[in-house]
Amino acid sequence: MPALLTQTTSLGGVGISGRRFRKGNTIVRNDRNTSWKTLKVRSSASADPLLLRVARGEQCERPPVWLMRQAGRYMAEFREYSDKYGFRHRSETADIAIELSLQPWRAFKPDGVIMFSDILTPLPALGVEFDVVKGKGPLISSPVRSLHDVKSLRTLDDPDGSLPFIREILSSLRSEIAGETTLLGFIGTPWTLAAYSVEGRSDRHLINTKQMMTQDPSLLHMYLAHLADALAVYACHQIDCGAQVVQLFDSWAHHLSPLQFAEFSMPYSERVIAKVKAKYPDTPLIYHANGGAGKLELMKGSSADVLGLDWNTSMKDARRILGSHRVIQGNIDPMYLFASEERIREEVSNNVADAGKGNHILNVGHGVIQGTPEQSVAVFCDAARGSTYAN
Amino acid sequence: MPALLTQTTSLGGVGISGRRFRKGNTIVRNDRNTSWKTLKVRSSASADPLLLRVARGEQCERPPVWLMRQAGRYMAEFREYSDKYGFRHRSETADIAIELSLQPWRAFKPDGVIMFSDILTPLPALGVEFDVVKGKGPLISSPVRSLHDVKSLRTLDDPDGSLPFIREILSSLRSEIAGETTLLGFIGTPWTLAAYSVEGRSDRHLINTKQMMTQDPSLLHMYLAHLADALAVYACHQIDCGAQVVQLFDSWAHHLSPLQFAEFSMPYSERVIAKVKAKYPDTPLIYHANGGAGKLELMKGSSADVLGLDWNTSMKDARRILGSHRVIQGNIDPMYLFASEERIREEVSNNVADAGKGNHILNVGHGVIQGTPEQSVAVFCDAARGSTYAN
Repeated sequence: MPALLTQTTSLGGVGISGRRFRKGNTIVRNDRNTSWKTLKVRSSASADPLLLRVARGEQCERPPVWLMRQAGRYMAEFREYSDKYGFRHRSETADIAIELSLQPWRAFKPDGVIMFSDILTPLPALGVEFDVVKGKGPLISSPVRSLHDVKSLRTLDDPDGSLPFIREILSSLRSEIAGETTLLGFIGTPWTLAAYSVEGRSDRHLINTKQMMTQDPSLLHMYLAHLADALAVYACHQIDCGAQVVQLFDSWAHHLSPLQFAEFSMPYSERVIAKVKAKYPDTPLIYHANGGAGKLELMKGSSADVLGLDWNTSMKDARRILGSHRVIQGNIDPMYLFASEERIREEVSNNVADAGKGNHILNVGHGVIQGTPEQSVAVFCDAARGSTYAN
Repeated sequence: MPALLTQTTSLGGVGISGRRFRKGNTIVRNDRNTSWKTLKVRSSASADPLLLRVARGEQCERPPVWLMRQAGRYMAEFREYSDKYGFRHRSETADIAIELSLQPWRAFKPDGVIMFSDILTPLPALGVEFDVVKGKGPLISSPVRSLHDVKSLRTLDDPDGSLPFIREILSSLRSEIAGETTLLGFIGTPWTLAAYSVEGRSDRHLINTKQMMTQDPSLLHMYLAHLADALAVYACHQIDCGAQVVQLFDSWAHHLSPLQFAEFSMPYSERVIAKVKAKYPDTPLIYHANGGAGKLELMKGSSADVLGLDWNTSMKDARRILGSHRVIQGNIDPMYLFASEERIREEVSNNVADAGKGNHILNVGHGVIQGTPEQSVAVFCDAARGSTYAN
């Protein structure tokens, strides 16, 4: 399983039972030509939830909290679904994806709810089919490796048509949470999706992608540009459907040296960000690069509103390099979720203190893994709610 | 397979045929009470080979070159042995280990010959048995997890008795190379060996080790101290047997956040270095931490003569942080060995230029992997021999 894809593979949620936070039985279902903006249930700006406000750069009392791979195999309720249905069935069937997204909010009350989906979800709309195989992770039947392959790709002209479940998932989630928490959408970055689809599977060396990088870099650049444009459309679509914040997962940035990152990843994430900002200037974007330690000086130049930090990065170093006003997210080692309650609270406290006087979203620095005690996630969220930014 | 152990698992060599660089059929075989220093064949200081001189901090014309995982599955001749014999048989049978160590020198003439061995090799002498299983990597039958386990460990009082092949391998290699290249020994760091033997196998999360780290840190510290003392004896033994430079592989440093690294890895590597320096002050030690990007400020404080850099680190950043006088090693992405000859030469040239006016040993920043064309390794070494330090 890839270090980075698995982090983003299962961003859903596991709850206690049914839809108990559902307001009555009413779910606002937008038809495909109705954007979220037109719905009455939208929160007023003054009542915006904490995570959204902090992501925008507003000064608040405490760090909001959510967890990458918030939903997932570590929760018993999640496994009731994963034992029964394949990944794509779960993530592309609106009712199930909504349920899985809401489970962690019911259980732990994090400040963000992220839709249950995958960074690869938009690929079939471009003509790249994939399947998620238990124990192996996602497999792409026809890897994208030639000029013909890249030229055969479709553009993402009509996401409502090609990914019809997205609008139902996000608009329903937005109604469900009713302004009490922030709804996050997400995409993979062009680099991460390119590398995944060139390899066709998780690979710890990326031989095929790196061969393309050295032997036919213009082909890789062409593919990255195509992906960037499609992903910009996809991110805009998520916002149109109700996402209040969108995170870009550069899950495979650790496969890149700083120079490779500067050439093959950052410019294409920036291309996505620029296009999304042109359409939705007020929607905060989070850029999370796994393997960002050693690339912070480069990432400092990102135009994302929030920079996500992996747990290999020292929070103090990050704050020193990025400055006190940059909004940062992270970065507790998810393995601390196997520690005692006292130690989890201590780590949260140290992390919040090191992050400084604000502009910080508390999160783990990598995905929560299978085997993590559910109670630890509860403690983590509780510790965040009880903390305040340093004075 | 672990990212870091595999890097150091197969540090041997693959050559063309027989012992064609062997001087006649004579191999100096020391008996166990004869240290290398007493042998006549030792090179005089003035004729010391390039890598040894650069590692000592001497100003030389060009960077010496060797490759981590120099020997290994990418060479056809190596596979003739690996197809026939298990890893421990190969690494613990002196004649085979000598042959495998010499193969890359015959084929590529690198400036360093590293003994074919494994970072886990000394563990059975402490009472921790392991086996290397094809496709799975090393497995430890009884992981070290309790106070009883740690207290039951043996000390390394008599390495000639418990690891008898080491003297024959190193002393023979030293004779074979006859001063034309530098003989490297190596050890794993206490952290890396502790984590490996607590987990019992390659694991991408180190759940057991991190649980020990948070729930019983004093036990982990006790184990690390025991390993540090044993590894210091083992490193000294390698020098006594003929190693001219010893590399410490902190292959699993990437599993550690900077704070965890500062607590659980560096102090124990420093303990090894201090003990070896007390006995052999003139033998250069290389400290290579995989996952060192983001930890360079900490590593700057290492008392190792040479700092090895992984390829996730920018050579320019490393030089800026570590200063112009620090000897550094690395750090080409081994995936460039799948590129064209021209591109390999370009990467070598850029790397040498970025490393500055000297004090640099050229190497890959992670182990050479299976599938790498042998010709690329030849080009890499040739490019190094043709390069000069920047003026």
